[in-house]
Amino acid sequence: MANQNVDYRVYLVTENYDSGHHNQYMKKIKEALDGGISLLQLRAKHESSKVFYELAKELRDTAASYHVPLIINDRVDIALALDADGIHVGQDDLPASIVREIIGPDKILGVSCSTVEEAVKAEQDGADYLGVGSVFRTKTKGDATLIELDELTRIKEKVSIPVVAIGGITQDNVKELLDRNVDGVAVVSAILSQTDVKKAAEKLNDKMKKAGSLL
Amino acid sequence: MANQNVDYRVYLVTENYDSGHHNQYMKKIKEALDGGISLLQLRAKHESSKVFYELAKELRDTAASYHVPLIINDRVDIALALDADGIHVGQDDLPASIVREIIGPDKILGVSCSTVEEAVKAEQDGADYLGVGSVFRTKTKGDATLIELDELTRIKEKVSIPVVAIGGITQDNVKELLDRNVDGVAVVSAILSQTDVKKAAEKLNDKMKKAGSLL
Ligand code: NI
Repeated sequence: MANQNVDYRVYLVTENYDSGHHNQYMKKIKEALDGGISLLQLRAKHESSKVFYELAKELRDTAASYHVPLIINDRVDIALALDADGIHVGQDDLPASIVREIIGPDKILGVSCSTVEEAVKAEQDGADYLGVGSVFRTKTKGDATLIELDELTRIKEKVSIPVVAIGGITQDNVKELLDRNVDGVAVVSAILSQTDVKKAAEKLNDKMKKAGSLL
Repeated sequence: MANQNVDYRVYLVTENYDSGHHNQYMKKIKEALDGGISLLQLRAKHESSKVFYELAKELRDTAASYHVPLIINDRVDIALALDADGIHVGQDDLPASIVREIIGPDKILGVSCSTVEEAVKAEQDGADYLGVGSVFRTKTKGDATLIELDELTRIKEKVSIPVVAIGGITQDNVKELLDRNVDGVAVVSAILSQTDVKKAAEKLNDKMKKAGSLL
């Protein structure tokens, strides 16, 4: 299993890339990195492979200068092409067991799950961590299935790999997740849609650190 | 360089997969295989990775039973996941040199080109064949750049790998391409949109064989 010492606490997922606002997009991500995010995932479902690849290369270099790993969503080929730190797949992507075969043992593999069954299978298939959600109602597409927070607790009991909660997480509701001992929270708009991106990342980071020190 | 003995003559490109009409789609492809197509490419840009992968597996097995290689469009990860025979990339996909690194020396690599410069670079980058077009006006998106047929001749002069013409090719205009010694023709609707798919493939196959025997 890869990279046991990855810090999953504040996991930023980037979405809605628009090449017409590239500089604005990069600026926000740098602010989030300045604010202390611990992990970065790139989603770019509707870009050409070439644009996705060029963007991913730039993000990888930017994240690396902060010692933050870059995880590529869905596209295993893009992850291989730029030798990214890891790959994240959902239940509608390539099967996790096949992905693990393709990427080898060293890259981080994350799998989206919304049930105990999916979680147990993902761990067996070689996942290094799970993205579990949606824990709260969200406007972001793709994580639409709302789960009970008790399912999060059941998953935590059944698997030994880190569990990252995702979906509709805000500065206010994050406490409910900390009470359930999640290893990290994955957010999009809680950081990227805020007026002060850096401060939003810092605040979330502080909350996660405090929770960690109480364990 | 991979698979020097690939037969590029009648290269069927499949498009517009609709999971609601899966059986109809597979039936047409089997008819085209019965009609003697020599190579098969799967494009499925708007499907999830999981659907693309499952479809590609089925097509690979079907094509293999006819000893016809399956080439995957754009998605190098899907090609790796099912150990497909090859991969085809366009100018908006991953760079050919990177693709060659990822797939290794044995898989067939095709690259779409519309100029001599792109063709020469693709050969240098490790392409096994070129898809050159659009040679004729077409309604199919993605191969929109119309090239002069003289550019096809110039490309044939500058590269030593097989050249497959693509874009708007019909039973009627294919003769113009044969006069320019293309190694194959890639078609979508000239086969798949015909009432008798098998017969359309047979007719095209006959024309390509006759041209080949005159060389
Ligand atoms: Ni799309």
